[in-house]
Amino acid sequence: MTTDTHRRHVLGGIAAGIAAAGLPRLAGAAEPGRKFGYAVVGLGSYATRQIMPQFKGCDHARLVALVSGTPAKLEQYGTEYDIPRMHRYSYADFDRIRDNPDIDAVYIILPNAMHAEYTIRAARAGKHVMCEKPMAVSAVECEAMIAACKRANRKLMIGYRCRFEPYNKLAIELARGGHVGQTRIINAEHGFYAQPNQWRLDRALSGGGSLMDIGIYSLNAARYLTGEEPIEVSAVESTDRSDPRFRTVEDRINFLLRFPSGIEAMCVSSYNSAHNAYRVVGKDGWIDMEPATQYDGHVMHIRKDGVVTPRVLPAPRRNQFQAQLDHLPESVFANTQPITAGEEGLADLRVMEAIYRSAREGRHVKMGA
Amino acid sequence: MTTDTHRRHVLGGIAAGIAAAGLPRLAGAAEPGRKFGYAVVGLGSYATRQIMPQFKGCDHARLVALVSGTPAKLEQYGTEYDIPRMHRYSYADFDRIRDNPDIDAVYIILPNAMHAEYTIRAARAGKHVMCEKPMAVSAVECEAMIAACKRANRKLMIGYRCRFEPYNKLAIELARGGHVGQTRIINAEHGFYAQPNQWRLDRALSGGGSLMDIGIYSLNAARYLTGEEPIEVSAVESTDRSDPRFRTVEDRINFLLRFPSGIEAMCVSSYNSAHNAYRVVGKDGWIDMEPATQYDGHVMHIRKDGVVTPRVLPAPRRNQFQAQLDHLPESVFANTQPITAGEEGLADLRVMEAIYRSAREGRHVKMGA
Repeated sequence: MTTDTHRRHVLGGIAAGIAAAGLPRLAGAAEPGRKFGYAVVGLGSYATRQIMPQFKGCDHARLVALVSGTPAKLEQYGTEYDIPRMHRYSYADFDRIRDNPDIDAVYIILPNAMHAEYTIRAARAGKHVMCEKPMAVSAVECEAMIAACKRANRKLMIGYRCRFEPYNKLAIELARGGHVGQTRIINAEHGFYAQPNQWRLDRALSGGGSLMDIGIYSLNAARYLTGEEPIEVSAVESTDRSDPRFRTVEDRINFLLRFPSGIEAMCVSSYNSAHNAYRVVGKDGWIDMEPATQYDGHVMHIRKDGVVTPRVLPAPRRNQFQAQLDHLPESVFANTQPITAGEEGLADLRVMEAIYRSAREGRHVKMGA
Repeated sequence: MTTDTHRRHVLGGIAAGIAAAGLPRLAGAAEPGRKFGYAVVGLGSYATRQIMPQFKGCDHARLVALVSGTPAKLEQYGTEYDIPRMHRYSYADFDRIRDNPDIDAVYIILPNAMHAEYTIRAARAGKHVMCEKPMAVSAVECEAMIAACKRANRKLMIGYRCRFEPYNKLAIELARGGHVGQTRIINAEHGFYAQPNQWRLDRALSGGGSLMDIGIYSLNAARYLTGEEPIEVSAVESTDRSDPRFRTVEDRINFLLRFPSGIEAMCVSSYNSAHNAYRVVGKDGWIDMEPATQYDGHVMHIRKDGVVTPRVLPAPRRNQFQAQLDHLPESVFANTQPITAGEEGLADLRVMEAIYRSAREGRHVKMGA
């Protein structure tokens, strides 16, 4: 009893779910003060600049291992983050993570086309999985990933960091709660000017262009701000194939979504112009975010009954990255579904496939039809 | 010679075009100080609240006659604007305007479905025509209107007031001039909450719903900000037919446009939420207007190289309504095509028909195909 009470105290109450979770491999996680161990898979810019520096601010997560195909990166970041040599893996070594009890989960930050393979291999190695978005390059791959994690009784979570960001959380609450009246129109725009010579512009690695990389934020926002799944999709693509950046992937692909309640969303996805904004328009006003989904610096304005007011939130104790990293262990300990589970990634991929089909075939695509 | 010089002085130089115009009926317009006479046709809210009060600020236009089916309105506004009884007409009397040399043009501010008939009758009566937008309820009607005015050797101008509004004129100049880099994306949103029981909601009079009334601003902005004609159109409609307002006309109809240069426009048209904005996004930033096309209170912001700056223009000597009213006589005197000639209204109607077809048939519509 005393030990249990102590655990609950240390883990902020979430350890109480461990017994219910029935996950013997994680028994170690219940040791007082022991944090959930992540192996980061892929040491590119997002992993090394955005994710790895965040572990120090997490309540439940720590960085315990690194996976990379570049020995120099393993050396550099292994030293920087104090990761013992036996916790540094090449891709050839990857499956040996099975034998490392310090690794509770992998965080897959690889090119999109590699997400499915490494998720499935991680699940087979008995590890929980955090996987960057897009979850994979096809819905079929997503389904295989979900099945593999289910079979292994491991959690699968997709790195939709915005769902852990306070302004976006508030926007969801206000939009779904009808703060500016029932939502009628959603406008979501995401884009940036893509620099040449990067894996994002190689379809074999990325699976697609702006939609896969940045347009997914417009789509995901439309879905999380409504809480609904689109029933009709129409997309128009504009790509200059003579631009060397766009030999294999699309530049701009804008899309319209119709939702069951009648909400219409209008979404921008661009590799040729900078966009980071959304607006939820209801009968009585709007909720506007610009920047909406950046790493920081979010700005919210609300127009209600003709008056525009800025809404400023206090800085959170944990930022969106830290809250996301903590959410997987929280879900494991409580044995609950992560709010951005594999099913969420699959839902986006299904719509993205419909968006591509609509642009390609020049017709509207009904979802689920 | 002396008289000619005097005329030029009085009419600000534009009278010089009169001889070239070869319009004998307008000889009277060259009398020193004589302004171009309009008959306003239809005394609804837009005519009486927005247009008629503007003549006093015009350089070249004056209100000389009224046409209405409601004797009480003719009495009220005839008295208010000092219009002699013989210059007040019912619709049955309309063709008698032919015999009134004070009337140089009509300004048609009737329900959309009546635009074609009254434009054609006015042209046959030898009068120039200013016609409110949408020009008509079909492209075929627009073509008939253009042909009728051409046959009568009269000018036909559509009331696209934004083309005479300083912020919109500057936005056009900046967008087409590449001030924020080559345009990549245009976002245009127009909508309002439609009150029940008005002719706009009766398809027989309006020819359609939000697109005809307010969505046309999104479309026209996309066209004037690019200076191009769309080559592909895709639209998704969302209308709750159980809402008594939307028994015969559409509520929301959003549309995507692709232009020859690769620009993609994303347009909102809504009868269920308030929107009045556009943004031109180029490689290096954007030009944002909100409100964009209202009667007044325009606000422009420009983002360039990461810095957002408001742009404030001095109040113009003539507002957009006055400049629009003056543009028809200016075009007549100079014998030039109005910048918002019938062809401009026809171009919008052609795209609007494609928008409706796309939404109805669930497919993209190629223009000119």
